[in-house]
Amino acid sequence: MSSELDLAPWVKLEELIEAGEPAAVLAEIDVLGPRDSARAISRLSAEGRAQILTLLEPEKAADLLEELPDAQATDLVRHLAPEVAADILSEMSSDESADVLGELDEEQLEEILQEMDREAAEDARRLVSYPADVAGGLMITELLAFPERATTGEVIDDLRRHADEYAHYSIQYSYVVDQERKLLGVLPLRDLLMTPALTPIHSIMIKNPLFVCDTDSLESLTEFFDERDFLGVPVLDAERRLVGVLRRRDFREALGDKAQQDYLRSQGIVEEELRSMPLWLRSKRRLSWLSANILLNLCGATVIAFYQDTLAQVIALAVFLPIISDMSGCSGNQAVAVSMRELSLGLIKPLDLVHVWLKEASVGIINGLVLGILIAVVALAYEGNLFFGLVVGAALALNTLLAVSMGGIIPLAMRRLRVDPALASGPLLTTITDMCGFFLILSLASLFMPYLAGGE
Amino acid sequence: MSSELDLAPWVKLEELIEAGEPAAVLAEIDVLGPRDSARAISRLSAEGRAQILTLLEPEKAADLLEELPDAQATDLVRHLAPEVAADILSEMSSDESADVLGELDEEQLEEILQEMDREAAEDARRLVSYPADVAGGLMITELLAFPERATTGEVIDDLRRHADEYAHYSIQYSYVVDQERKLLGVLPLRDLLMTPALTPIHSIMIKNPLFVCDTDSLESLTEFFDERDFLGVPVLDAERRLVGVLRRRDFREALGDKAQQDYLRSQGIVEEELRSMPLWLRSKRRLSWLSANILLNLCGATVIAFYQDTLAQVIALAVFLPIISDMSGCSGNQAVAVSMRELSLGLIKPLDLVHVWLKEASVGIINGLVLGILIAVVALAYEGNLFFGLVVGAALALNTLLAVSMGGIIPLAMRRLRVDPALASGPLLTTITDMCGFFLILSLASLFMPYLAGGE
Repeated sequence: MSSELDLAPWVKLEELIEAGEPAAVLAEIDVLGPRDSARAISRLSAEGRAQILTLLEPEKAADLLEELPDAQATDLVRHLAPEVAADILSEMSSDESADVLGELDEEQLEEILQEMDREAAEDARRLVSYPADVAGGLMITELLAFPERATTGEVIDDLRRHADEYAHYSIQYSYVVDQERKLLGVLPLRDLLMTPALTPIHSIMIKNPLFVCDTDSLESLTEFFDERDFLGVPVLDAERRLVGVLRRRDFREALGDKAQQDYLRSQGIVEEELRSMPLWLRSKRRLSWLSANILLNLCGATVIAFYQDTLAQVIALAVFLPIISDMSGCSGNQAVAVSMRELSLGLIKPLDLVHVWLKEASVGIINGLVLGILIAVVALAYEGNLFFGLVVGAALALNTLLAVSMGGIIPLAMRRLRVDPALASGPLLTTITDMCGFFLILSLASLFMPYLAGGE
Repeated sequence: MSSELDLAPWVKLEELIEAGEPAAVLAEIDVLGPRDSARAISRLSAEGRAQILTLLEPEKAADLLEELPDAQATDLVRHLAPEVAADILSEMSSDESADVLGELDEEQLEEILQEMDREAAEDARRLVSYPADVAGGLMITELLAFPERATTGEVIDDLRRHADEYAHYSIQYSYVVDQERKLLGVLPLRDLLMTPALTPIHSIMIKNPLFVCDTDSLESLTEFFDERDFLGVPVLDAERRLVGVLRRRDFREALGDKAQQDYLRSQGIVEEELRSMPLWLRSKRRLSWLSANILLNLCGATVIAFYQDTLAQVIALAVFLPIISDMSGCSGNQAVAVSMRELSLGLIKPLDLVHVWLKEASVGIINGLVLGILIAVVALAYEGNLFFGLVVGAALALNTLLAVSMGGIIPLAMRRLRVDPALASGPLLTTITDMCGFFLILSLASLFMPYLAGGE
C-alpha cells in the first residue's frame, strides 16, 4: 500500500488537478514553496500544465505565475484561452506581465490584449514594445503621479482613498507631473506628512530630479546605479513624459539574468529553453543555431579539402587536425570570456581594441610557445620525424597567438557593430581559427614535404 | 597644444599620482565615478597601481576599494606593504575586506592579519576560512547583539553612545544572545522605542527566530530567500552561535556573480582574470586549464591514430573529422547549458538523471537526423559516393544523439560528485564525443571499406 507521502509532488499535483480541487492545489503549492512548485509543475503532463491556471482564481493564478521563472510562466500562459489569460495577467504587476506577454507570439499577444481593459492593454502594449534589457523593459508602470496644482491635503486624501490599490506599489516616492505628464519633481512621501494640508505640492517637491530614459541600456543603467544609492528612479520617454519607475532590485535582477543569458547564448541556447517546452520547439530553436554552425564548419573543412593531396602524403597530419582546431578554439574562448567579463565590469570599452590586443598577444606568445612545444614533442614521438614535430608545433603556436588575439578583440568589435557578443563571438572565432589553423599546418607541411615524406 | 581635457583619464591619473597629490587624485576619481575609475586604474602603470592606495588616507583608500571589482581591489592590495594594507582593510566592511583577503596567497594574508588589531584579525580569519559561496562567506559581521538581561533603556543608551560606529550597520534588527553568544531572539528596533525603559529585552524579543547556517550553500539560500521577504537573516555556526548577518542584497549579488563565474569557468577561465594582472599569472592560470585539455584532446587523437590505415584508404574522411568533433561538441554543450540553467532555477535536481536523459534523447534523435542528413548530402556531393555520404551522416547522427544525452546528464552527475559542473562539463563532454565520434565514423568506414574505396 502506498500512502500519499510516497508520491512525487508532481504526481500528487496532477491528481489534484484532475480531481478539480483548487483549494487543495493551492495548499500543495504552498507547502512546496516556489522552487519545488516550479519543479513539480515542469513535470506535469501537458494537460496538467494547461489546466492548473484555469483551475485557480485569477488572483491566485497571478501570484503563482509571479513566483515561477519567466520562461515557465510564459509556457503556462501559452496554453490558456485569451480571456482567461487576460484576467490573470491583469492581476500581475506590470513588469511581470510584460515579461510573459513579450515571449508570446504576435497573434496570441493580440488576442490577449483585446480581452484586457483598454488602459491595461495600452500599458502592456507599450511595455512589450521595449527590448527586455533597456529601462523601459525593466520598469514598472505602477507609480503615483500628481498634477502640479494639487495640494498636500489632496494628495494625502487620494492616498487614503486608494490605499488598497496602492498597497502593491513598493515605492517610497511619488512624482509631480504637468498636464502632458512631463516630470516636474519628486515628492518624498514623508515630507507630505509634515506640511500643512493647503500647501501646493510644487512648493515642496524636489525640482529637476534625476531620471533615466526608457531606451537606456543595461550598461548605462549600471553606471547610473553604481554611482547613486537610489532605490528607484523615474523613467522618461523621448518627450520627457513620465512612463514608469525603475527599481534597483529589478535592475539588479536583470543584471543577474543577463549573465545567465550570456552563458546560455555562448553555448548556443539562443532563446530560453526549459525541458517542459514542446519537443518541436526545443529542437527547432537548437537546430537554427546548429545549422548556422555547420555551415561555418564547412568553411574550415574546405581548407582541408584543398590540401587533400598533402594529407594523403603524410596521413599522420589527420591525427593532429582536430587537436589544432579544438585547442585554438579553447585558447580563443578564454580570451573571449575575459573580454566579456571586462566589458561587463566596465574595465574596457569597445574602442579599446589596441589595448586589449596588446594584452592578449603577450599571453598568446607565451601560451602558444608552451602548447606548441608540448604538441611538437608528442608529434615527434608519434611520427619519429623531427620536421613533423616542428610543423605541428609551429602551426599550433602561431594559431594560438592568432586565436588569443582574435578572441580578445572579437567581443569588442561585435559590441561596436551592435551584434550580441555572447552569441556571435564563439562561432566567428572558431571559424577563423579553424580555417587559419588548418591552413597553417597543411601549408607548412606542403612546404616541408620533402623532409616529412622522407622521414619514415 | 593639448589641454588637460584631451588626456585619457589614466594618463591624467598617473600624472597626479606621480606628483603625489592625494586631494587631486581623490577629486579625479570622484569626477570619473566608480566604473570609469576602475577602467582608468586598470590602465595605470604597475607603479601607478602600487602607489595610488598608499597615497590616500586609509579611509579614502577603503572607500575606493569597496567600489572596485573584487579582483581589481585584490590586485591593488597585493602590491601594498602589510601594515598599509592592514590599515586600509580595517576600514572596509567585513564582507568586502574578506573578499579581498580571501584572494591573497597564504603568506601575504598572514602578514596582513598580524598587522591588524586582534579582534579584527580574528573576524577576518574566520570570514576568510569560509568558501565564497556559502552563507559564512557572504555574511557581514557588523551586527548589534545584546545580552538577554539587558533592558530596552540600556540598549537605547548603547545605540546612542555608539551612533557613529553603528552608522555603517545597514541593519534594521538587533539580536539577543546568551553568554555563549547563542541566538535567543530578534529585536525589531522600532519596538525598542515603544517600550518602557526598564523592560528586559528578552520579554519583547521575537523568540525562535529563523536563521541560516554558516555552511549553507547558495542553492539552499536561494530557497530560503525565495520563500521569504526578509532583508537579512542571522547566520549561526555549528554551535548555534550568532556569527553574522546575511543581507538579501549580498545574497543577490552573489547569485549574479555565480552566473558570471559559471560562464567564465565554462570557457576555461578558472580563476578570475583581469588584464591588469601580471602577464605570468594570466598565462599560468590559462595554461593550467589548457594543458589539461590538450591531454584530453590526445585521447580523441589516439582513436584516429588507431584507424590511420582506414584514413589512408579514404583520405576524404579527414575532411569530415573536425566537423564531427565540433558539431557534436556544440550539440552537447547546448544540452549542458540547459541543464545548468534548470539546475540554477531549481527545475531539476541531481537525481533527475533519467527524466533529463529522456528529454534530451528525444531532441537528440531529431537533431541527429537533421544534421546527419545535411552532412550526408554534403559528403555525397563532395566524394560522389553514396556509401561515403551514409557513413559520414550516420556517424554524425549517432554521435549527436550521444552528445546531447551526455550533455544533459553530465552536469547533474558532476553536481552529485560535488565537482563544479560549469568547469568540468565541457572538457569531459568533448573528450567523450570526440572519442566516440571518431570511432563511429572510422569504424563505419572500415566496415564499408569495399564500397568506399571502390566508389571513385
